[in-house]
Amino acid sequence: MKKQAPAMFLDRFRAPVSAAISRCISFLREQYQLPQYFLVQLFDNLENYTLRGKLIRGSLIPFTYYHLAGAESTGAAVSETDVYSLAAAMELFQSMLLIHDDIMDHDDLRRGKPSIHALYAAEGQREGLRNFRHYGECMGICIGDIATFLAFDIVARLECDPAIVQEIVRFFSRELVLVGMAQMQDVRNGEIEQLEMADIINTYRHKTGRYTFSLPMSLAALLHGLDATIRSRLELLGEYLGIIFQIRDDELGLFGDPAKTGKPGDSDLKEGKKTVVMQFLLDALAGRERAELQRILQGYRGGEDRERVYAYVERYGVRQKVDEFVQGYEQRCREIIGALPGAALRGGLEELLRYNLSRGH
Amino acid sequence: MKKQAPAMFLDRFRAPVSAAISRCISFLREQYQLPQYFLVQLFDNLENYTLRGKLIRGSLIPFTYYHLAGAESTGAAVSETDVYSLAAAMELFQSMLLIHDDIMDHDDLRRGKPSIHALYAAEGQREGLRNFRHYGECMGICIGDIATFLAFDIVARLECDPAIVQEIVRFFSRELVLVGMAQMQDVRNGEIEQLEMADIINTYRHKTGRYTFSLPMSLAALLHGLDATIRSRLELLGEYLGIIFQIRDDELGLFGDPAKTGKPGDSDLKEGKKTVVMQFLLDALAGRERAELQRILQGYRGGEDRERVYAYVERYGVRQKVDEFVQGYEQRCREIIGALPGAALRGGLEELLRYNLSRGH
Repeated sequence: MKKQAPAMFLDRFRAPVSAAISRCISFLREQYQLPQYFLVQLFDNLENYTLRGKLIRGSLIPFTYYHLAGAESTGAAVSETDVYSLAAAMELFQSMLLIHDDIMDHDDLRRGKPSIHALYAAEGQREGLRNFRHYGECMGICIGDIATFLAFDIVARLECDPAIVQEIVRFFSRELVLVGMAQMQDVRNGEIEQLEMADIINTYRHKTGRYTFSLPMSLAALLHGLDATIRSRLELLGEYLGIIFQIRDDELGLFGDPAKTGKPGDSDLKEGKKTVVMQFLLDALAGRERAELQRILQGYRGGEDRERVYAYVERYGVRQKVDEFVQGYEQRCREIIGALPGAALRGGLEELLRYNLSRGH
Repeated sequence: MKKQAPAMFLDRFRAPVSAAISRCISFLREQYQLPQYFLVQLFDNLENYTLRGKLIRGSLIPFTYYHLAGAESTGAAVSETDVYSLAAAMELFQSMLLIHDDIMDHDDLRRGKPSIHALYAAEGQREGLRNFRHYGECMGICIGDIATFLAFDIVARLECDPAIVQEIVRFFSRELVLVGMAQMQDVRNGEIEQLEMADIINTYRHKTGRYTFSLPMSLAALLHGLDATIRSRLELLGEYLGIIFQIRDDELGLFGDPAKTGKPGDSDLKEGKKTVVMQFLLDALAGRERAELQRILQGYRGGEDRERVYAYVERYGVRQKVDEFVQGYEQRCREIIGALPGAALRGGLEELLRYNLSRGH
């Protein structure tokens, strides 16, 4: 598991996906009559915010699409511009979700910079507005909504077969309804004291798996005109990849390097977040130690609390347990990948699996 | 101007549009795996909330579509089911906007019942959740987002020509981006002391005009395969109709009957809302009287303040001035309608104009 992170996968597509985001946003900026500077700014802010992301979801579209070139295909003709515009739309949906999530979580930082609502709150404060915090949140809600419609506007301007465009709208809509429901679940989970491991895994499966991996991969397969069998295998693979990805993210939220993640290494402790890793730790403890951890999760005080949690993790071999759990999903991924057609596709998906496994390791 | 409100227009389409909303939501409820009661509830809440609306925007789609039957048409074949599904989608977008608006405005009531965030806050309070108000707002943000994607899901399942579906997605996206920007403008306006009449009219034009009237009317024209000239005339007509509609709404917010509007008759005074009617009143006053009105708008105390405002309105003939202003737009509407083809269409649009003029009169 201690392989070097093969960042290649992201490196290769980051530049063209970034360029597509800027191209689409510039195009849209021209389409709308923007009589006021603060509306021009909205497009700039949205562009900068989106470009600061890892662009995993957007990159997965060309990544899968071009790896599928080796697989059997009915050969639907889709231009490179369309492939990358779709990647840009995918990233605008992601921005929408993050902008709204940050309001819900009261997160003023995103990727080490002010989140959208915090940006507007600060601006409102400079302008002497009375309720600048609420002003920032209102702007964040609006800009999230606008990002959604800009993303659909990009989809609606694709030049491929309109029947494919219609399917793309259906894919995005369905998966984003599911993400919304998973987010509602997440908000509820935050309020509930006791959670089952199965509930947490289910949220990972939908919020990260289906949305982050299954959706871009099956969109790419759709562009390629691949049949529903391959698409449904890619969807299942995406769910497992998402679970792995999210568990690695849990580890970063608990043991991560602030310089790399842009947030404190113990941020999940601070928020008392109910992650799979935290659940493994809770399950390993009993009696006084378990009560102590629960107390820490309800009112984390840093320093000594952090050391205590890290000592529990060490003592009960929690990281090994998590690794074994992840290996189970790794195995399932390998089985699905092995059954897919085309050496190039299999090679690409192996690379993706390795990327997910190695995050933060 | 004192004609009887011809409620016929809405009455005729209310039942079939309501039925379409219930049909679409029931269908979608089946499509998504809803393992938990609270997710089933989400669909019920969204359905009830949507059905409580006046359904003007949704009704305008079949209204315009069937009146266009008499006009020249390239005769694109669109089923009645598609026409009404599109109306249901239109109303779900409207629900999304209202759900998010209510959070921004801290409005706990909508149409005399709890708004969505207030509904969930109350539920959270009953369940003993810690931050039940914030919980309600988070749920409201999520449910608004979900309503957007459900609406697009309905559009993506239309059975007419995919090229038309693609155009519909583009229409909705573009107009809802404009609504989002107008809403940002609105939030800013709420914070700015001095506003120009032109800014307010511009917000009415985009937020009410283009979205409430131009969009459903041009969607109907699109379903009918009508050419761009007629569509652009309908769009301009929609903008003017929206300005009239919104000014009548201002009057309801200032002089309205709470039993009919579901909100207090002086709600705009309470909120210090910057409406066209209020601007006419402000422009009519000078010196001490103007200062007094500005004081009232910044800290309304009911009773005596209300009487004073009503006395100013009477003394300076503000309602007559507003009526004259509205008549200018009425004239422009009549000119556009007169130049449209088809007696049935012209008759229908005349009815719509009368409806807008007579609201609250």
